[in-house]
Amino acid sequence: MKVAQLYEGKAKIIYSTTQPDQLIVYYKDDTTAGDGAKKAQIQGKGPLNLKISDYFFRLLEAGGVRTHFIETLNEREMLVKKVQIIPLEVVVRNIAAGSISKRLGLPEGERLPRTVVEFYYKNDELHDPLVNRDHILALGIATEEEMDKLKEAALRVNSILEPHLLEKDIILVDFKLEFGRTQTGEILPADEISPDSCRFWDKQSLQKLDKDRFRRDLGSVVEAYAEVYRRLCRQ
Amino acid sequence: MKVAQLYEGKAKIIYSTTQPDQLIVYYKDDTTAGDGAKKAQIQGKGPLNLKISDYFFRLLEAGGVRTHFIETLNEREMLVKKVQIIPLEVVVRNIAAGSISKRLGLPEGERLPRTVVEFYYKNDELHDPLVNRDHILALGIATEEEMDKLKEAALRVNSILEPHLLEKDIILVDFKLEFGRTQTGEILPADEISPDSCRFWDKQSLQKLDKDRFRRDLGSVVEAYAEVYRRLCRQ
Repeated sequence: MKVAQLYEGKAKIIYSTTQPDQLIVYYKDDTTAGDGAKKAQIQGKGPLNLKISDYFFRLLEAGGVRTHFIETLNEREMLVKKVQIIPLEVVVRNIAAGSISKRLGLPEGERLPRTVVEFYYKNDELHDPLVNRDHILALGIATEEEMDKLKEAALRVNSILEPHLLEKDIILVDFKLEFGRTQTGEILPADEISPDSCRFWDKQSLQKLDKDRFRRDLGSVVEAYAEVYRRLCRQ
Repeated sequence: MKVAQLYEGKAKIIYSTTQPDQLIVYYKDDTTAGDGAKKAQIQGKGPLNLKISDYFFRLLEAGGVRTHFIETLNEREMLVKKVQIIPLEVVVRNIAAGSISKRLGLPEGERLPRTVVEFYYKNDELHDPLVNRDHILALGIATEEEMDKLKEAALRVNSILEPHLLEKDIILVDFKLEFGRTQTGEILPADEISPDSCRFWDKQSLQKLDKDRFRRDLGSVVEAYAEVYRRLCRQ
């Protein structure tokens, strides 16, 4: 079904298919951090991220949030609706960690007084800078209306994922979404929802179950990803 | 009239007065750049910045924008209404220059497709980071309503200053405002409006007539400030 490779990213490859409105996303084992400075292959990461993303996309669809997900084809390939990715990383934060702790001087682990949504301009050369709404308008990336939609959708995703994960003894600290426009102008969450794009902490021990294990050299990366998937599957 | 020194900043000193609702702002010759890494005394800068600020505050008041300005007392001291400074730098940009060029990869000198307003969190330790509205809410710095007011006031200041300066053959590239709350809850532009806080370019030559002459070691700093004041005073 794959026709041609359209794009190779740090952790995924996108292929066209015989259907003009469908793409295949191939999940690689490659992982990078520190703006690409740190690279590794983590055996089995791709299939785990695919299974976890499959789980979350189905959960969102069941909750009334349409996504780019169609179906999982095999352990590394997911069939999705073709979208034009909007070059914004939409970050939702429940608890201070990572860049917001550094930026605002908030201790890591502190619950934010309210959920924070951030937009980052997806641009490797510029190192994905934080942008505000005026920047996004000046760059012509999205309209006011579209930004409202992105923020609303991101908060809705949070309102589905956060309580669901808590039942699995996982704290959803923060996560990053990417969105795409379909040919009919619909804006859908795309990309992946996985320990590569979310911060997951164990509810009791606050142990990290996400890519920070790689970023911060904590070890047991794939084991943590597997633990997330195990908890998602438990009844 | 000065009673006690309340605060010493990089370029100004604030004193209390015998009037509980009034302060004196003393304009120093000191100048800093690069987050305080670069420091100098520029003979005569303080009095020029005071005269230029006096000019702009009067212009704004005449245009219906209330400010903290009361009157100039002498060549270095300005009497102002006592306000509690909101720890935000409100930046208005008409043309790309400085940090926005670096952040968004926009060539310096390119007119922005629309005026951009940015908020920076005034915090030396954190190096005055760019923040979005959610950050400001999470930090408890200002309410949604207050942010709307700040943005509206900043754009109104721009709509008065930009055409006025153009008549003086000066392009208003960008500027920074600080605002303060009075005891009655009014929010007023405070601080200064000078070549330290604005980018002024000569309309023909695009020569810099502002603090970038110091930041970028272009020389003739005080001469450029004097030239701005000379043009403001010309009929």
